[in-house]
Amino acid sequence: MPTIKTLVLILDLCGTFVFALSGATAAVRRRLDLFGVLVLSFAAANSGGIVRDLLIGAVPPAAIGDWRYLAASLAAGLITFGWAPQIEKLQNPVRMFDAAGLALFAVAGAQKALASGLNPVMAALLGMLTGIGGGMARDVLLADVPMVLRADLYAVAALAGATVVVVGSTLALPSMATTMAGALLCFGLRTIAIRRG
Amino acid sequence: MPTIKTLVLILDLCGTFVFALSGATAAVRRRLDLFGVLVLSFAAANSGGIVRDLLIGAVPPAAIGDWRYLAASLAAGLITFGWAPQIEKLQNPVRMFDAAGLALFAVAGAQKALASGLNPVMAALLGMLTGIGGGMARDVLLADVPMVLRADLYAVAALAGATVVVVGSTLALPSMATTMAGALLCFGLRTIAIRRG
Amino acid sequence: MPTIKTLVLILDLCGTFVFALSGATAAVRRRLDLFGVLVLSFAAANSGGIVRDLLIGAVPPAAIGDWRYLAASLAAGLITFGWAPQIEKLQNPVRMFDAAGLALFAVAGAQKALASGLNPVMAALLGMLTGIGGGMARDVLLADVPMVLRADLYAVAALAGATVVVVGSTLALPSMATTMAGALLCFGLRTIAIRRG
Repeated sequence: MPTIKTLVLILDLCGTFVFALSGATAAVRRRLDLFGVLVLSFAAANSGGIVRDLLIGAVPPAAIGDWRYLAASLAAGLITFGWAPQIEKLQNPVRMFDAAGLALFAVAGAQKALASGLNPVMAALLGMLTGIGGGMARDVLLADVPMVLRADLYAVAALAGATVVVVGSTLALPSMATTMAGALLCFGLRTIAIRRG
Repeated sequence: MPTIKTLVLILDLCGTFVFALSGATAAVRRRLDLFGVLVLSFAAANSGGIVRDLLIGAVPPAAIGDWRYLAASLAAGLITFGWAPQIEKLQNPVRMFDAAGLALFAVAGAQKALASGLNPVMAALLGMLTGIGGGMARDVLLADVPMVLRADLYAVAALAGATVVVVGSTLALPSMATTMAGALLCFGLRTIAIRRG
Repeated sequence: MPTIKTLVLILDLCGTFVFALSGATAAVRRRLDLFGVLVLSFAAANSGGIVRDLLIGAVPPAAIGDWRYLAASLAAGLITFGWAPQIEKLQNPVRMFDAAGLALFAVAGAQKALASGLNPVMAALLGMLTGIGGGMARDVLLADVPMVLRADLYAVAALAGATVVVVGSTLALPSMATTMAGALLCFGLRTIAIRRG
């Protein structure tokens, strides 16, 4: 069973990869060149975690001090740039990758906030903020109103996922199980909202 | 007579509430749903203070570590969402709440910056930045050019209010009195500018 | 021969001045008033360095704790406001000042990141981020898509300049020489891209 630190790292890197896919796909749609795509991949993937780490005083943030976040972001950006037509064939690719990133970052953010000693309510809120930060950065950089402000069940999905983690931790349930349950709840809520959309 | 810490807390919470009203009112005008309104309430209300706390190294920032900031933001968001027609009947509600928040955050930011040991000129500047941060976040999230860049006597009103606090502190005047004078000066300057509009 | 600290300070202040010119020129074009111009000068000039300092845990950031950054920003804003017609006669003034600021901040950011103990790859990346941060803040505040996402050879020019500094440091070459080489490479790449348009 992985420790909390390993769990946060794995969730963070997976979230980084899928949020980078969402940022890169949005950038390709706007016909940005390769480096614009890579910058947007990195910004979409790492803004949430960087803000979380700054807020809890963990400097340098993981996304800056650990090369794997950069590698995951660039890999997603390069894949998207090279295979954009195939990715576009997926239904709503930006929204689906965004939903996965939201779920992963919401639970990872809540876990890391709890580990830093924040109280449970604030840890859930910080998980939500971690989740919505990357997509906000992506949309603000493209001069759009962020999806969190337009889409149904967005912030509330992230908050629900983070809350499962925090409540599970308060009840001393196994963190692996509550983390997966929280991520699935958040992803499920967003998927339902996108399908109904 | 309250200590500086209590004074900053009261000013901060009042500023949080009125800036949250301005954010929520702007969000309701754009027909965002409830959670979009609450996210914008929180962002408008707390971005200024969070940036100030990050800049002076006070982590976790008060808005993250203390549940009362969240409560004030959500209360303002819920009130605005429920009674939007009544609030819209007020003249220029976004601008008036924004002016009050600007005044409160400018003086609170200056006080907290002084207490953290910044020199007087930089403390006045940081007060100004604290004041203008929340409204900038609100407008950037709604993909508008921030009011600070369009409106007369905006940054200068915040700077004037913060300067009164800093000069008062340098002259060892009672902080309660200079803080109120600074807030009234800032609010007055903005109100005149809005009326002349 | 100046120490690294003096070198970073000089590069930072020069970068602050030219990025402030680019922010002020963009603001004057949008017909903002004097204080809007000064706010945009400060934001364009100092956002990159402030973000860098927050990310490496150097609080308060140099731009907040040291009055010379403010003075350089305000001087550039006042000059631009007073002599806007003359500055507009320069070819592409926003882009040329932006290129100079990008080059200076990329190498200064890389130097400061190395000095804070980041590994070489991340130091180069942070140099790039320092370089592109100011222009991003300027464009986001004016509700534009940032130039880094639209322009050729933007992020890559910053990365190239920062990489020269980092490689030079790894090979223990004189920091003065590698810093000038890195800045010239970055500025040259951007100038070529602007000329080719």
